[in-house]
Amino acid sequence: MKSLQVRLAKRPTGEPTAENFDIGEVSLPALADGHILVRVIWLSLDPYMRGRMDDSRSYAKPVAIGDVMQGGTIGQVMESRHPGFAEGDFVLGMFGWQSHAVSDGTGVRKLDPAVAPLSTWVGVMGMPGLTAYVGLLDIGEPKEGETVVVSAASGAVGSVVGQLARIKGARAVGVAGPDDKCRYVVEELGFDACVSHRSATLRDDLKAACPKGVDVYFENVGGPTLDAALSLMNPFGRIPVCGMISMYNTGPVGGDADRLPALMRRILTDRLKIQGFIVSDRAAGRQKAFIEEVGAYVRDGRIKYRETIAEGLENAPRAFIGLLRGENFGKQLVRVSPDPTRG
Amino acid sequence: MKSLQVRLAKRPTGEPTAENFDIGEVSLPALADGHILVRVIWLSLDPYMRGRMDDSRSYAKPVAIGDVMQGGTIGQVMESRHPGFAEGDFVLGMFGWQSHAVSDGTGVRKLDPAVAPLSTWVGVMGMPGLTAYVGLLDIGEPKEGETVVVSAASGAVGSVVGQLARIKGARAVGVAGPDDKCRYVVEELGFDACVSHRSATLRDDLKAACPKGVDVYFENVGGPTLDAALSLMNPFGRIPVCGMISMYNTGPVGGDADRLPALMRRILTDRLKIQGFIVSDRAAGRQKAFIEEVGAYVRDGRIKYRETIAEGLENAPRAFIGLLRGENFGKQLVRVSPDPTRG
Repeated sequence: MKSLQVRLAKRPTGEPTAENFDIGEVSLPALADGHILVRVIWLSLDPYMRGRMDDSRSYAKPVAIGDVMQGGTIGQVMESRHPGFAEGDFVLGMFGWQSHAVSDGTGVRKLDPAVAPLSTWVGVMGMPGLTAYVGLLDIGEPKEGETVVVSAASGAVGSVVGQLARIKGARAVGVAGPDDKCRYVVEELGFDACVSHRSATLRDDLKAACPKGVDVYFENVGGPTLDAALSLMNPFGRIPVCGMISMYNTGPVGGDADRLPALMRRILTDRLKIQGFIVSDRAAGRQKAFIEEVGAYVRDGRIKYRETIAEGLENAPRAFIGLLRGENFGKQLVRVSPDPTRG
Repeated sequence: MKSLQVRLAKRPTGEPTAENFDIGEVSLPALADGHILVRVIWLSLDPYMRGRMDDSRSYAKPVAIGDVMQGGTIGQVMESRHPGFAEGDFVLGMFGWQSHAVSDGTGVRKLDPAVAPLSTWVGVMGMPGLTAYVGLLDIGEPKEGETVVVSAASGAVGSVVGQLARIKGARAVGVAGPDDKCRYVVEELGFDACVSHRSATLRDDLKAACPKGVDVYFENVGGPTLDAALSLMNPFGRIPVCGMISMYNTGPVGGDADRLPALMRRILTDRLKIQGFIVSDRAAGRQKAFIEEVGAYVRDGRIKYRETIAEGLENAPRAFIGLLRGENFGKQLVRVSPDPTRG
């Protein structure tokens, strides 16, 4: 059995390009006792992967040069010598950017496609959805009538943040790029408003969209959106800083004035809380409540989602580069092989 | 009856000077029904007063030009037409920088000098002590074996932060200016270590003093100490940002690189929490526990304090300017009139 793999060829400086990846086949060993062979169906692409391509200190180990790119995947068991899995089982695991994988079952979870569509387990029902859930509810703590602003509002995390905020009785204001994404956020996802971070009047636009100021800013992207949101924070505002951000990896920005003293003054004057979080730290304690609560919202249509699908593993690097540029619309997936549960 | 007053003459740019204040007498009206006349004994000088001299947006209203400078005071009732107060009562109130005041009793608290010395009610038993208490315990949440770093360690807030940290089983590391303050912090107050922010090797000194990294950094001053502490924060570290800081009022610092992206990255990578707080927001809920707990530590000598006393209201501006320069040692007071409970 062979596996097609996308590996890290060299570390990027700034935006990754096709040259940072290479693609090749390896032969998988014969299946040993206690192992399973998995055919990967869906590969999730997420901004955090950009961070793993650097060798700087972070909350997770970097991918080594020549190693398979890391990533969450959904697959189907082709062969099992493990008592916990049978041929045909659908599974969720960190099999990475490859077509087939052998695993001893550690960290692999069986999925029932009747509960929610397979692909959602790396999207709204998976890590991005859980990120939105713990960041918004546990750190942001939105109260009825408050205003929640979220950047990358049409993305896998942001779209759940805004819809959850609405469900909790808050005003949800998105920040997105192009007009079609802003329209989608308001018209399809039901946000109260959405402004474009490409607008020259971003701060004024955001101010107009938040007539009562901002109580929770879900920080998901960095840059000018953070500045605009900071300037509008209400006293006792909360800023969860989401662990999927890659943008701080792009190195120092020269020439700008130092914004740190002003930030510290805002933190003090308005008693703001800024708190970083990584979803994996909080998954154990919150996974069950999340699946129950958000699963119900997905089934009754109160939380909607959209997917952008790249066809074939060979297109994963291009799709990933597009994701970092904001070219995707909703959750970015790669269809590595056919999903038998989809028409 | 006349009152000697120190008033705001003009707003300072940067460091205040004698020109920003003027001193003069006013005649107090005859005492109306429901009022008390107070002779001020102790005036507390605190860094937050620098912020009140600016007219920029803050958590409290600025002092108007020509108005008496605000400040916490301890006094004695000279005459009472209020049923809640009798002549001779010792009281705590915000009577400001003046020798006498008339009050309707709002916000005025009677003090029993047998419980703790009068002057401590604006120091270790007062707002600075409560600031240390709520900031360290409620936001910093130090755990046994963790390391707590506090700037301005010999000051009214910092000295209580470090001593409380020790009582809670944490390692206490101070940052102070001159050697005599560092020695005092270690030898008298019992901190585990103290480094000087004047050292060219501040970061290395702090690193050596914190071999297991920093879990709580009590931000009390800003500047290079913040940078050094940030670079040493452990995962899940907490940074309470204390509402007595004046240093962020000194306007933008030109020429420096923008440290905000690096800060946001640190917040994310190490899941740091940075939270501003103002003691008055938290006083109602915590005052009782604070008085009980810290009062006991003061009586049994586990929490020590030192006072720097300026004699006479006319010396208040000079003492305040010195406080902002770090020339005081421990709590800065002005003796406005004799304290009959002291020898």
